[in-house]
Amino acid sequence: MNTLQNEVVSLQEVAAGCFTVVIDNPPYNLVDAQVFAGLQAVKSFAEDPANGVRVLVFKSANPEFFLNHVGLVMADQDGSAGEVSEPLEIMQGWPAFSHWLSSSPVVTIVILRGRAWGFGCEFALSADMRFASKENTRLCLLEVGFGALPGGGGLEWSQLLAGRARAMEFVLSSDDLEADTLELYGLVNRSLPDAELDASVDKLARRIASFNPAGVAMAKSYLTKRQPVPLPADLAEISAAAGGLLSTDAGQAVVGRLIVKAGGVPFSNEVELDLPKLCDVD
Amino acid sequence: MNTLQNEVVSLQEVAAGCFTVVIDNPPYNLVDAQVFAGLQAVKSFAEDPANGVRVLVFKSANPEFFLNHVGLVMADQDGSAGEVSEPLEIMQGWPAFSHWLSSSPVVTIVILRGRAWGFGCEFALSADMRFASKENTRLCLLEVGFGALPGGGGLEWSQLLAGRARAMEFVLSSDDLEADTLELYGLVNRSLPDAELDASVDKLARRIASFNPAGVAMAKSYLTKRQPVPLPADLAEISAAAGGLLSTDAGQAVVGRLIVKAGGVPFSNEVELDLPKLCDVD
Amino acid sequence: MNTLQNEVVSLQEVAAGCFTVVIDNPPYNLVDAQVFAGLQAVKSFAEDPANGVRVLVFKSANPEFFLNHVGLVMADQDGSAGEVSEPLEIMQGWPAFSHWLSSSPVVTIVILRGRAWGFGCEFALSADMRFASKENTRLCLLEVGFGALPGGGGLEWSQLLAGRARAMEFVLSSDDLEADTLELYGLVNRSLPDAELDASVDKLARRIASFNPAGVAMAKSYLTKRQPVPLPADLAEISAAAGGLLSTDAGQAVVGRLIVKAGGVPFSNEVELDLPKLCDVD
Repeated sequence: MNTLQNEVVSLQEVAAGCFTVVIDNPPYNLVDAQVFAGLQAVKSFAEDPANGVRVLVFKSANPEFFLNHVGLVMADQDGSAGEVSEPLEIMQGWPAFSHWLSSSPVVTIVILRGRAWGFGCEFALSADMRFASKENTRLCLLEVGFGALPGGGGLEWSQLLAGRARAMEFVLSSDDLEADTLELYGLVNRSLPDAELDASVDKLARRIASFNPAGVAMAKSYLTKRQPVPLPADLAEISAAAGGLLSTDAGQAVVGRLIVKAGGVPFSNEVELDLPKLCDVD
Repeated sequence: MNTLQNEVVSLQEVAAGCFTVVIDNPPYNLVDAQVFAGLQAVKSFAEDPANGVRVLVFKSANPEFFLNHVGLVMADQDGSAGEVSEPLEIMQGWPAFSHWLSSSPVVTIVILRGRAWGFGCEFALSADMRFASKENTRLCLLEVGFGALPGGGGLEWSQLLAGRARAMEFVLSSDDLEADTLELYGLVNRSLPDAELDASVDKLARRIASFNPAGVAMAKSYLTKRQPVPLPADLAEISAAAGGLLSTDAGQAVVGRLIVKAGGVPFSNEVELDLPKLCDVD
Repeated sequence: MNTLQNEVVSLQEVAAGCFTVVIDNPPYNLVDAQVFAGLQAVKSFAEDPANGVRVLVFKSANPEFFLNHVGLVMADQDGSAGEVSEPLEIMQGWPAFSHWLSSSPVVTIVILRGRAWGFGCEFALSADMRFASKENTRLCLLEVGFGALPGGGGLEWSQLLAGRARAMEFVLSSDDLEADTLELYGLVNRSLPDAELDASVDKLARRIASFNPAGVAMAKSYLTKRQPVPLPADLAEISAAAGGLLSTDAGQAVVGRLIVKAGGVPFSNEVELDLPKLCDVD
């Protein structure tokens, strides 16, 4: 069986052509440079025909967090003041990676358990399918509450999956939705009892991986042809717009105020567990 | 706090940037010239940057009717015969007003309680978001049953929100749907217990109004850019088509028959309360 | 009342302009040349203005099967070996027929009771509306599991009705969904108790048929104008792609293996009742 491993992202072949990717970046699965390097390595691995990847299932080793936001970078590095931004290498690499999730002949499936805040939520929404733990899933796009907008595909995918009105609510509220509402809104394929979640997705993934790969790839390709997915240029444009908002005085003021409210960066585990609360009206 | 008031439409600022608009046109909240003038005044008020409007919540003072159809105009003014049409100033002004609801940087939210027939339903569907009273909401596009078609955006928004098959059912049946089906179909964001409805929407509206306005406006703008909303020219075209149907002999015959069946115009409160029944097969 | 009848497809006018089409091709409602000729006759009948067809309701005489796949043709006709394909006259005629279901001024409604596998499922999805028996509906697009892809509109309609992620699941899994999940996904308008299904659809169909035909036709036409349906050329293209996959060595190997697994063709009633199981991972 094929495997691939860095310290935070590991890949394992569970059946012919069917691979599981586990993300494990304690304490709360932030998307940092190492996680992104691991995800890029998964992409490179899957793009090599010699590895025979047909289906990728992404999951987390941490039941509290599927995948979290990108850690903010402070210009003065002391975590309490100065200009705040997001790591450049992730922002620059994301459009191509995100587009690959939806345009690759490989089928990408996400097992959602725990929280997915910000970028982690955008990642989940960009995959081909998502199945959520009924008891333990919370998704939130925090960006508008932090003064910017979701620049990693979360805005586009929310609308493609849930329609305009519910995407508007999800994006503008910067508040979290739980599994049953995510299912109602179409933001996840289905909300499943936690105890059945992994086995149910595993069965689906193995089934698809067992089919004629040419048929699977052509079906995905036709779905994309009939309803185009966000292109790298679209994602780069909205990412730049989000970065622009974050760098304005108004944007920096919001982030600065929220960092103070949270007790400084990096945020504590308690703050992370209820991050949407940080955007509550005071 | 900023306010604006005519006899039937009043506006009040409930938190910085967050405004409530109450429509109150007894006995059953018809859209007449005065209501439309009030709605136009709300638009002008919201377009003036000096007023700082970020979020508008529309609601009704009448728990039986959110907002009703446009009162029909009889050519001979006696309410029992002659050519029937809809008031010209509303028909001509509506495309620009409706488009503003979805294209303005101001976020527009509707609290649905009671009935929304015809134009009132088209108004509700054109706003950015809608939340419905679980126990007390009925929406109906009556126009096809009256021999014409929904010419105020109801057809387009039904399809954008609910998809083709359910829009087809909703538009062609000219029958009403209640809150839980509206939620299933995506025609409302959510169906909420009546006792929680106002507080829930109020919390959402205040939250959005508290965020960086540039981020909120840009997020709404990108949602509109990625999936265009009906343009004024589109709405004017379908409005003209609907008016054309209504003015044919066949269209006038249907309306004439229904007016007789209803016992003349204006309709009684009893007829208005169950208006979709008027289109039942005899 | 107008009627039309061949041995397997019969049409009856149940109210002015409102017609029921019953498909009855024992033992399990395969789409064969005779069924397709019957459906084409219904189309021709409905296209003749003299017949006054406004609404068509399609249903099955067999409670176990709404409509089934196309019977595979074996090049050597002995049912156990040789090259396998689908009947040419159905494949060539389908794009125009399918497009007519969604583009005709006649309103097309499907009563779903029992199984709809493959082509039968594509037929159901191509109609304007679908209502399903809550206790007794199973839809499956088997084509990917058989090494090809749904070439009769099932892929496009799944995505138009259910969105990309759920269409991806439905199409790629080649597994069946039951009524309540179909309703959640938007693949049917509604899941109704079996005992209420026929009366509920009958009421809707008669209601629409009683309205001004010009209004009904124009409303359907505007829905199609605002969100285009698959064109005959689109359907012919994907049908050719599906046929191409089926004729590759890999495609023929899959079908050959599944035919052996099923015990030869034609499949037994037991195999047909659980056809998606044939694609289970061994």
